[in-house]
Amino acid sequence: MKRVLLIGAKGTIGSAVKAVLEEQAEIIEVGRESGAFQVDLGDSASIKQLFESVKPVDAVISVGSGPVVFKPVTELNVQDYRQSLQVKGLGQIDLALQAIPYLKDGGSITLTTGILNHDFIPAGSAAAMVNAAIEGFVRSASLELPRSIRLNIVSPGLIEESKEKYADFFPGFEAVSARRAALAYRKSVYGIRNGHVFHVTP
Amino acid sequence: MKRVLLIGAKGTIGSAVKAVLEEQAEIIEVGRESGAFQVDLGDSASIKQLFESVKPVDAVISVGSGPVVFKPVTELNVQDYRQSLQVKGLGQIDLALQAIPYLKDGGSITLTTGILNHDFIPAGSAAAMVNAAIEGFVRSASLELPRSIRLNIVSPGLIEESKEKYADFFPGFEAVSARRAALAYRKSVYGIRNGHVFHVTP
Repeated sequence: MKRVLLIGAKGTIGSAVKAVLEEQAEIIEVGRESGAFQVDLGDSASIKQLFESVKPVDAVISVGSGPVVFKPVTELNVQDYRQSLQVKGLGQIDLALQAIPYLKDGGSITLTTGILNHDFIPAGSAAAMVNAAIEGFVRSASLELPRSIRLNIVSPGLIEESKEKYADFFPGFEAVSARRAALAYRKSVYGIRNGHVFHVTP
Repeated sequence: MKRVLLIGAKGTIGSAVKAVLEEQAEIIEVGRESGAFQVDLGDSASIKQLFESVKPVDAVISVGSGPVVFKPVTELNVQDYRQSLQVKGLGQIDLALQAIPYLKDGGSITLTTGILNHDFIPAGSAAAMVNAAIEGFVRSASLELPRSIRLNIVSPGLIEESKEKYADFFPGFEAVSARRAALAYRKSVYGIRNGHVFHVTP
């Protein structure tokens, strides 16, 4: 039975991931404020502390997001992009880097991006940049990992369960269920792919 | 005759861009320390001052790079990624954002990335992340620009003229001439594409 560290366990996707994995895995639930352990992905020391508390693990899954600025490009300044990178982008990269020594041989890391660097919405250029940065990191860094550790991404589209909240920002986007997104995380953890972006779209 | 602001004019690619464009354009040469004007892409105020000094322009080309950390992924920490983003990534994004009000209608912005987020080398994961971030930004932001302003990227591979210096880091990579790269910038400035990554590979 794999020991899986699940960051963002209480969110819409996180709950679905838990439901899909829990028969086969021991899930360690982590949240910013909820869960068995807490972590702030924007704080390196907090990530270090998390791994020291739970080591060793077979898989690290981050469905954690972070504050990203949504504004028309003509209203954004460079500081908005820098801030948008801080948690979802650099925080998830930090998580992946720090996970390596705490993972068992053949373990895996799965990060989360989103559809906005492959399909585009008004005011979404900072999100596009953050997602793309994570994907660039994963595609390259995954090829240098020791001890057969794998590093992948799940990139979900608009999620059915949170559609009402976001549908106005995603005109014409077809939603997918959180359960379908969760299956992609399962594929990443139990499959053999490395450096892959699992796109979850209808 | 277009007025073209060329940042990084004295470098290997910059000189070739100048040679390819100068018959059809008034080239305003900009460098960190050389050229008719100076700019530090890591400093927003310096970018503002540059545009105030040269306005208005038809095209902004950045072949400027910036310090990017090259180390095996197991030796990198999040601060290395943050620093690598600072000038080449966020600096070029800042340049693009600030260029908009100073560009004539139908003007263009062309940024520079590189091959390392499409092909990969050992120790290149920070470079891959930075290039990908810029591409994510350009693909999305280009769709929101006012007054028919266009925003593209040129992504050159290993350059023939600087091959001796870098060949050991790019095992098996075939080089392209700086002149071929320069043609891609010309296409970006005088063509109609928007949100495009012009890959310059053999």
